[in-house]
Amino acid sequence: MKQADVVVIGGSAAGIPAAITARRHYPEKSVLLIRKEKQVLIPCGIPYIFGTVGTPEKNLIPDGVLQNNGIELVVDEATDLLPAEKQVVLASGESVAYDKLILATGSSPVELPIPGFSKKNVYTIKKDVQYLQSLLEALKDVKNLVILGCGFIGIEFADECKKNRDLNVTIVETLDQCLQIVFGGGACKCCQEIEDYLKQKGIDIATGSKIVEILGDEAIKAVKLSNGEEIPADALIVGVGVTPNVDLAAKAGLALTKGGIVVDTTMRTSDPNIFACGDCATKFSFFTGKSSTLKLASIATTEARIAGANLYEISRKNPGVLGVFSTALGDLTVAIAGMSEKGAQQCGFDVVTAEAEAINRHPAGMPGASKMWVKLIFNKVNGELLGGAVRGGPSAGELINTISACIQNRMRADDLAVFQIGTHPAVTASPIAYQLVNVAEMALKNMKN
Amino acid sequence: MKQADVVVIGGSAAGIPAAITARRHYPEKSVLLIRKEKQVLIPCGIPYIFGTVGTPEKNLIPDGVLQNNGIELVVDEATDLLPAEKQVVLASGESVAYDKLILATGSSPVELPIPGFSKKNVYTIKKDVQYLQSLLEALKDVKNLVILGCGFIGIEFADECKKNRDLNVTIVETLDQCLQIVFGGGACKCCQEIEDYLKQKGIDIATGSKIVEILGDEAIKAVKLSNGEEIPADALIVGVGVTPNVDLAAKAGLALTKGGIVVDTTMRTSDPNIFACGDCATKFSFFTGKSSTLKLASIATTEARIAGANLYEISRKNPGVLGVFSTALGDLTVAIAGMSEKGAQQCGFDVVTAEAEAINRHPAGMPGASKMWVKLIFNKVNGELLGGAVRGGPSAGELINTISACIQNRMRADDLAVFQIGTHPAVTASPIAYQLVNVAEMALKNMKN
Repeated sequence: MKQADVVVIGGSAAGIPAAITARRHYPEKSVLLIRKEKQVLIPCGIPYIFGTVGTPEKNLIPDGVLQNNGIELVVDEATDLLPAEKQVVLASGESVAYDKLILATGSSPVELPIPGFSKKNVYTIKKDVQYLQSLLEALKDVKNLVILGCGFIGIEFADECKKNRDLNVTIVETLDQCLQIVFGGGACKCCQEIEDYLKQKGIDIATGSKIVEILGDEAIKAVKLSNGEEIPADALIVGVGVTPNVDLAAKAGLALTKGGIVVDTTMRTSDPNIFACGDCATKFSFFTGKSSTLKLASIATTEARIAGANLYEISRKNPGVLGVFSTALGDLTVAIAGMSEKGAQQCGFDVVTAEAEAINRHPAGMPGASKMWVKLIFNKVNGELLGGAVRGGPSAGELINTISACIQNRMRADDLAVFQIGTHPAVTASPIAYQLVNVAEMALKNMKN
Repeated sequence: MKQADVVVIGGSAAGIPAAITARRHYPEKSVLLIRKEKQVLIPCGIPYIFGTVGTPEKNLIPDGVLQNNGIELVVDEATDLLPAEKQVVLASGESVAYDKLILATGSSPVELPIPGFSKKNVYTIKKDVQYLQSLLEALKDVKNLVILGCGFIGIEFADECKKNRDLNVTIVETLDQCLQIVFGGGACKCCQEIEDYLKQKGIDIATGSKIVEILGDEAIKAVKLSNGEEIPADALIVGVGVTPNVDLAAKAGLALTKGGIVVDTTMRTSDPNIFACGDCATKFSFFTGKSSTLKLASIATTEARIAGANLYEISRKNPGVLGVFSTALGDLTVAIAGMSEKGAQQCGFDVVTAEAEAINRHPAGMPGASKMWVKLIFNKVNGELLGGAVRGGPSAGELINTISACIQNRMRADDLAVFQIGTHPAVTASPIAYQLVNVAEMALKNMKN
């Protein structure tokens, strides 16, 4: 029987940093990682396989990251977990004994109860090289592609599948707008500009629509919407919702909820020797302390760094998920950290917002100049920053992390207004026009009104 | 006699935001801004006039920013200040009465005591459209250009002047490396890569050298270095050092030091009705509380927002200057926030550092992929972040502001290691490889050693 001090089950955005963190914090402990996949996909890179990147093989997390950190890799499926014996049973029949265990088993796409869901050419987004390869192959013969879900995955798949292919793409979405859940929709310019981009690329968007039936014989031929309309479809890609992988935890009798494996703020499960992190573990909101359904690779890595550090000595606490999202379609990057205006209102916060747009260079004639828009959402009661959204060029992807840092430190509008930023003609807005600081000043004024 | 509730003297990176902030915080007060320049240059954009941007006229701060905020503009020179009468005397003979006054009079380049400094074609970097226009004209006939000073201004001028011109450029610098004062030099890869870039562009760098004499008749012909070497020079651009403009404050009898007009942490001078901000005001370090010589447009705007808000009711305190710098030469952006490793050591801090490089996209095949390097400097005693440096693509300009937010909130390495970031294939490193968080983890490990 194999054995290691620390065993991690799962080799993606939670498992890898959990194992690395364990090695960093407990260099004298042996760390072994078990995963069932021969090759591990970069989860957020999956949509880009279908356009920009080209193949699943070009979207892999290299195993070198494990070797370089002295982590033993076992490619096998964990089929049972015996917490009393502190053993993991593998599909090959072998067992692995552990002292501390980290479950990073991730999530799987939900199978929707739509009639016809099992027809050929109906795809979910499985993190599986062969499966995605088969989708890539199937797309060669597709003339009409329907994508269900207008979240990040949906819009990225739509844009990528349309690239270099002569096919019709239609996105079907229950809600009224693209990215509505995250950005809050309504007057949100991010939702609007994403929709404008997609339409300009010739992608049809059917918002406010449900797929009630998948039509066809063996293979899909069309989807039927709730309004009776039928949209021809040679393939359907379903980009809505995932469910935590908890089979192993269930077999071991660990406490579970609908949100996943129950963990405390140290990422420990109901068994003191077993930790869980990433999509398989329960989450709660940084803002409200209430349970959260947010699942992101970046959240998984943060939780993994908490779990890995806490194995033998509790030193880190999970403050709850903030939610920091970004995506880019063409030259347009949109990003959000924390709560949207609508989301904060729905949670009962009395909010004050402000927004500003400025050129991301100075003077405006500098190369790379484009508009960068920032919106901030503050708690009117105590002035604390609850969220921020950014729309602009690629550096929006880092600017949103500045906003995230401000939220995590519970900075108030008054703190942000005198936040010391660095600026440069070739890479940012001018110090006078710098959006983040100006918007905080504008929000302060709005708070007084 | 003109009069306004709030009068601001100076119309650049301090004066404009000071006036806007006064308007925002005291909308019932009238605000009047006095400046002597017909047109105001974007200070950080000045080097780009000589290459990328092309003319001073394309590097101006538009007056619309004043009009849009209901600020009255008077273009005239303030020649005297009578604090007892609360009046500013103008060169035109007119006077302006004020209730509260903000001095944002900026700084001027130092005239160096080098023999021959007054010769024709010896230029300092004056923020003056006509003067810079004359330099632009002069460059047409220059074959050999010498630039004194290898700080940000010096390297930017060198790179820009070399663009589209057939001339030899030599930078002369007393210290051993480019950008040494800010980045600390030594093994700092930022200094090294900037030097490599400049050399690759055919620019000569004479570090460890002083100009002891400027040779020529009426006009400069050459510069003589301390080692006896003579470098032919048809023009010399001096990019070293500025001195605060305090004439007006001196006439008014305000307290002064070598560092400028003495201000307290509310930006108030020795006269309770007069505030000062920007290059003309004294500064102190965020880290040590000791006086600081840092002068940056971004610092000026922050101080202006403190001064403007505090005019009638003290609500903001200056925590001291942090120093956030960035610059870009070609595709290479380097940036630093807070202290360099060497700077922190010189201040007596026991420091722990770590650094990491990762691709700024994931997978590495995504468009725009390039290496992004991050170094962090922590206080070993309490784990607090003292500084960070970044080298990479344009988004380094925003990433450095994330680091600045972390410093200002006195985050420790352990906080940073579980900092919730957002990542996306098209705009950042992967969540597993994200430099800022990884470097914090590595520093934690180094702290234990």
